[in-house]
Amino acid sequence: MSGRNDIDALIDLMARLPGLGPRSARRAVLHLIRKRALLLTPLSDLMQTVAATARECLNCGNVGTGDICEICSNDARANGLLCVVEDVADLWAMERSGTFKGRYHVLGGTLSALDSIGPDELRIPKLIDRVTSEEITEVILALNATVDGQTTAHYIADQLEGRVALSSLAQGVPIGGELDYLDDGTISAALTARKRL
Amino acid sequence: MSGRNDIDALIDLMARLPGLGPRSARRAVLHLIRKRALLLTPLSDLMQTVAATARECLNCGNVGTGDICEICSNDARANGLLCVVEDVADLWAMERSGTFKGRYHVLGGTLSALDSIGPDELRIPKLIDRVTSEEITEVILALNATVDGQTTAHYIADQLEGRVALSSLAQGVPIGGELDYLDDGTISAALTARKRL
Repeated sequence: MSGRNDIDALIDLMARLPGLGPRSARRAVLHLIRKRALLLTPLSDLMQTVAATARECLNCGNVGTGDICEICSNDARANGLLCVVEDVADLWAMERSGTFKGRYHVLGGTLSALDSIGPDELRIPKLIDRVTSEEITEVILALNATVDGQTTAHYIADQLEGRVALSSLAQGVPIGGELDYLDDGTISAALTARKRL
Repeated sequence: MSGRNDIDALIDLMARLPGLGPRSARRAVLHLIRKRALLLTPLSDLMQTVAATARECLNCGNVGTGDICEICSNDARANGLLCVVEDVADLWAMERSGTFKGRYHVLGGTLSALDSIGPDELRIPKLIDRVTSEEITEVILALNATVDGQTTAHYIADQLEGRVALSSLAQGVPIGGELDYLDDGTISAALTARKRL
């Protein structure tokens, strides 16, 4: 295979990443070739390592190395709180906030009749298992505020009703948010949940 | 090193690609981990191949394998036309148009007094060499229509004046362009260079 063909193949693969199209993939590949020692070689090596080691945690669905992820194997985090999220990106976002010290459960999506995704396609049976086996006292439903997310939250709440305390994230004005730019639903939710000073 | 740290390191490296920020790098890495066999492993392998084989053509500055690129070693393209471009991305763009059948010369940037980039930092001496050694009949200055691009084009034109025919890309309305969305400079250039039907 000629060199240009390898470069073309690399561009095609890069263009399949979310957020990159053909044009930005070309720019990225040229940048990689220019920064071969600083970027291309380390990136290729790290990808190989991650491809060999990264796997889904059998317990919560997080991405890590080994069968059980760092959070699930950290006893300090067994505080009885379990935060249910849609996918690993949401778990990472929660972790960046640094506020939550409990464990997670990654559903791997939302219920969707259209795409025929039922409870068994998600990690919902496993969630119900964990609530009893891990002595969970409160399940925090941190699903996205979309129709599918809220449908899924309702379904899970129905399943766990009476077995464990349930909560969901507060809805309201984001920090730094300007009223003029918020949608009506958010303003109305923030108004309903207003706090007395 | 723990698995999560490798993943974090991969996200950091990916975020240094042009067009990707921290958020899109996270999305891309999660996507890569999910599509390990289809995307992550082939991407890592191809990057390794490209890191090992890609290099700058000693003649024109294009990226390829070997010391001389495919275009420079293709005798069918020695038709006396030499197209001068700023960088490899521009060469690729010219090649995609499929119209130009000659050879290229990649400057590697533009003259810039502010960044102290003079003719010797670019591939301008080599360009002047090639004009005589490769029996070039016409040099097409396909530099970007920016101030720096046009300054560089004028400098090169001065250097080559009287030694070879010089031309530049036509300026005018882009195909599919709507007058209402074009800047005044483009409309004025298109009007000045109007063609009789």
